[in-house]
Amino acid sequence: MPTYKAPVQDYLFLLNDVFHIERYADLPCYADFSPDLVEATLTEAARLCDNVLAPLNRTGDSEGCVRHDDGSVTTPRGFKEAYAQYREGGWNGLKFPQEYGGQGLPSVLAGALTEFMAGANLSFSMYGGLTRGAVAALLQHASDELKRKFVPKMVSAEWTGTMNLTEAHAGTDLGLLRTRATRRPDGSFTIDGTKIFISAGEHDLAENIVHLVLARIEGAPAGTHGISLFVVPKFMPTDHGAVGPRNAASCGSIEHKMGIHGNSTCVMNFDGATGWLVGEENRGLNALFTMMNEARLSTGVHGFAIGEAAYQNAAAYAHERLQSRALTGRKQADKPADPIVVHPDVRRMLLTVRATTEAGRALAVWTGIQSDFAACAVEPEVREQAEGHMALLTPVIKAFCTDMGFNGAVLAQQVYGGHGYIAENGMEQFVRDARINQIYEGANGIQAMDLVVRKLDMNGGEPMKAFVREVEAWLQRNAGNPAFAMHVSGLKAALGDLQQAGQWITTHAGDDPNVFGTSAYDFLNLFGLVAFGYMWGRMCEAASSRLATAPGHGDTYLSAKLAVGRFFFERMLPETALLLERIKTGTGSLMDLPDEAF
Amino acid sequence: MPTYKAPVQDYLFLLNDVFHIERYADLPCYADFSPDLVEATLTEAARLCDNVLAPLNRTGDSEGCVRHDDGSVTTPRGFKEAYAQYREGGWNGLKFPQEYGGQGLPSVLAGALTEFMAGANLSFSMYGGLTRGAVAALLQHASDELKRKFVPKMVSAEWTGTMNLTEAHAGTDLGLLRTRATRRPDGSFTIDGTKIFISAGEHDLAENIVHLVLARIEGAPAGTHGISLFVVPKFMPTDHGAVGPRNAASCGSIEHKMGIHGNSTCVMNFDGATGWLVGEENRGLNALFTMMNEARLSTGVHGFAIGEAAYQNAAAYAHERLQSRALTGRKQADKPADPIVVHPDVRRMLLTVRATTEAGRALAVWTGIQSDFAACAVEPEVREQAEGHMALLTPVIKAFCTDMGFNGAVLAQQVYGGHGYIAENGMEQFVRDARINQIYEGANGIQAMDLVVRKLDMNGGEPMKAFVREVEAWLQRNAGNPAFAMHVSGLKAALGDLQQAGQWITTHAGDDPNVFGTSAYDFLNLFGLVAFGYMWGRMCEAASSRLATAPGHGDTYLSAKLAVGRFFFERMLPETALLLERIKTGTGSLMDLPDEAF
Repeated sequence: MPTYKAPVQDYLFLLNDVFHIERYADLPCYADFSPDLVEATLTEAARLCDNVLAPLNRTGDSEGCVRHDDGSVTTPRGFKEAYAQYREGGWNGLKFPQEYGGQGLPSVLAGALTEFMAGANLSFSMYGGLTRGAVAALLQHASDELKRKFVPKMVSAEWTGTMNLTEAHAGTDLGLLRTRATRRPDGSFTIDGTKIFISAGEHDLAENIVHLVLARIEGAPAGTHGISLFVVPKFMPTDHGAVGPRNAASCGSIEHKMGIHGNSTCVMNFDGATGWLVGEENRGLNALFTMMNEARLSTGVHGFAIGEAAYQNAAAYAHERLQSRALTGRKQADKPADPIVVHPDVRRMLLTVRATTEAGRALAVWTGIQSDFAACAVEPEVREQAEGHMALLTPVIKAFCTDMGFNGAVLAQQVYGGHGYIAENGMEQFVRDARINQIYEGANGIQAMDLVVRKLDMNGGEPMKAFVREVEAWLQRNAGNPAFAMHVSGLKAALGDLQQAGQWITTHAGDDPNVFGTSAYDFLNLFGLVAFGYMWGRMCEAASSRLATAPGHGDTYLSAKLAVGRFFFERMLPETALLLERIKTGTGSLMDLPDEAF
Repeated sequence: MPTYKAPVQDYLFLLNDVFHIERYADLPCYADFSPDLVEATLTEAARLCDNVLAPLNRTGDSEGCVRHDDGSVTTPRGFKEAYAQYREGGWNGLKFPQEYGGQGLPSVLAGALTEFMAGANLSFSMYGGLTRGAVAALLQHASDELKRKFVPKMVSAEWTGTMNLTEAHAGTDLGLLRTRATRRPDGSFTIDGTKIFISAGEHDLAENIVHLVLARIEGAPAGTHGISLFVVPKFMPTDHGAVGPRNAASCGSIEHKMGIHGNSTCVMNFDGATGWLVGEENRGLNALFTMMNEARLSTGVHGFAIGEAAYQNAAAYAHERLQSRALTGRKQADKPADPIVVHPDVRRMLLTVRATTEAGRALAVWTGIQSDFAACAVEPEVREQAEGHMALLTPVIKAFCTDMGFNGAVLAQQVYGGHGYIAENGMEQFVRDARINQIYEGANGIQAMDLVVRKLDMNGGEPMKAFVREVEAWLQRNAGNPAFAMHVSGLKAALGDLQQAGQWITTHAGDDPNVFGTSAYDFLNLFGLVAFGYMWGRMCEAASSRLATAPGHGDTYLSAKLAVGRFFFERMLPETALLLERIKTGTGSLMDLPDEAF
């Protein structure tokens, strides 16, 4: 059975050495954020994830969720007890305001918890993850009355949340959705319709489930401008924070899926259910965007979280498994064969997983800090720049980190050879679970379109320019360092490829909008590589500086950072040139084949 | 539920227009091989695969195989009846000599059947596939007595075969294996040991199962030079072709796997079982290589077979699924949204699957023809060159076609969005089933090592030179054709990259054998791209020539070939330059990190 150890050390390195969070002590939300508190919180979170959640991952997969005839759903054995520990530890409220019962800690720390939980047990982590997303949407858009009724119970994890968007015929294209909302005299609405793919739609972990549901109010315009957001609880809340009568929102069936079996994916039926409007009428997509962006970032985190878990097990196996001799002659003569970690191609696989996992984590931490800036920086221009960063990076993190995470899970499984295909070793579960990250919360192709169509030129291209300035500052800072000559020249070339690609798209999309679509995926990958390259630049810079200024402590860890960084710069980053060339081939090779020839 | 339609038209195009098999009528084994026979055979094979095997693919996955307390194994519902049809149709004997009850048809035709069956139902196809591999090994290495006893029953598919290599601690490194063979006075052997991952090790489809088992004869040298091959039947054969007493070879358990659930993967226990030596003592690996090479080629075919099946369903879905409008404005105004086939990124995914599937098929057909040359060409030098081709191309086809097939299944699943993650739509099964092709019959990393260590310089590099000459001949033939200017320049550059990479490896591996390992995978991919590029060159050449000489018939099909070829040349082939550069970065970035830092 696979094991898991939350990467606490890597977070401490990123927070302290790479991003120097101590510099932000003047930020209100970082005021009480001491290195000791960080370490204590991460260590405690790791304890829960390593010891309680990870051991339930395999059994959760093989048992799955069961729906009973009365519509109730039982989660796998042990989930209930683990959820109680999660709730009692106050983990769900880590980043939420104290006035709602949260701990008021920065987002960047909550991001670490998101990784740890998903690395330990993705299915389990989604119950709390969706709840936190729903809380974020309610906090930003709901009336005080609704906030008072729902938010504290959700912050405490006594109640969980869901996100009800998709219908059978309306996934990417939410404008097609048909769920109806009918106004009642008391200001509430009657909700009728069927939603599919609703994660955590029904379960036995909490006393109530709060559904956020997209629906169309009678008479609303067609398309995306006629969609409103509603809160539709499973049980009606009383004024005293208890649960009242059952609402007409129920799970019609649960899906049989490729993976994440421990999370119940429901068809949800709303049959005259009571709901309350969240935010403005017909502005539901806007209100839901808070939750969606949060979910997209978290999904990106889930991508490298599974990469990390898969890596840990593949690396352990590569030490244990004895097979053939090293090409340069036997390494462990006392054993019948050498451990496979000596073989270059096994190292190629392991290093690929590690290079992408660690860069993804750095990118998420950097973005987590920006998220805190956006929420609580005093200067409006800092908040605005941070929001631009998040808007730009969200699709990149969502798609690139999940593609890399899936790829990483596949490579880690490959390290196991035939044993990787066997269920009880757990490596194939990582592949099946990681696969969903590329699909849900906006399929990765949709993220690529979001990036090129909406984000590249938003606010006159300012977020993109700010990103380029960041990378250029690193290049300038390290231009004279001979140890980083390869890193600097590589990142400079890659950044140039990114800028050229962006210009090429902007220039040509005016004449032919298909240019957006034919270049989107390659552009997103190009951006992902440059962002990862910048993160490796930052990590190598920090590791090198700490090795020089404080040698002796953690040298093995820091030297490994430099080695993995070198691998990324030498073997992965140069792909940007290929992606730029591919973008410049234009639309013909994709668009000329008539529809009917497919 | 997914559907499947065997690609008969594509085989007819490849056999008739691209590779002109009518030119080989002077080859003994092609003497009766008329275009009519080809078409009739393929059409009949397609009927079996489309109508009988494909409908059992989903149910076979969800039911799986069941082992009972007595050690017997039941295959999924319908497999038994389908197997009877397969047997009665004489399909298992397609390419085997008539003296053993086969039909004596060329290998290239049997290759088409291999694809059709795997595309329809990979799990089912393996029962016959392993039998055919075992027959090939027995025909080449077994005594006349053993051939007489076993081969006719296996050619007719009354009995099936297996390949017993792997033990828990010995997979890639077969030299470690421990199964013992003890000589008996009557010349037979007593076999003791446990094998794992034995596909089709026990089932209810046939009256007997013939295991080919690697074991070490008492006193044999350690390592790979002390391994012998034995035939160990489930039931002892009588002299009259019936089954006699039960042998001590039994299935101890069946594995729970990621996919291919319809095939029983057994732990096989040999407890004093009776076996007979096949070929020479201590030359078991050599004897097994016939079967293994056959299995590797077939596995490569399975790779694009699943790519094809996944493509067909994704393309159909892309026509049905209405979601959002085309970037250039609505295409189907009467519908609530356009079919997603209009979206460039959906086309990117579909075209990637198709470009790799169709090139893989062409490469397999070309190699199938070479296999027939190797078996029955009159001139020894033609046989020798064909054998060189097979030795060189086998690892490329095995690894590259299965990597592309898996990638294709993932992309096809992605086209389905969230619906692709749901079991009943069958797309996720393609991904799980395709995954095994990269792992078994020698993991793909092992294929890459086989290519660079053994094949690149074999016979003074003659097979490699012959491959280069082939591609150069195409380049020369098409150099003056303006319609192929991009194809010629692209393939020329790619071939140059391949040659440079080969030289770089040969030059540097002398000083540091790790060079083989650090460059192997990239070199294999580079070779795969060039081979696919050459295949697309041949297909475009043939399509273009037929459009010019016989317009009107099949124009849509031929134009699509040209379009998909263009996609491959513009968007996929240029990766060779990146792979060459990566190879040239050498060993440092993979080897410098100490083992303990993983």
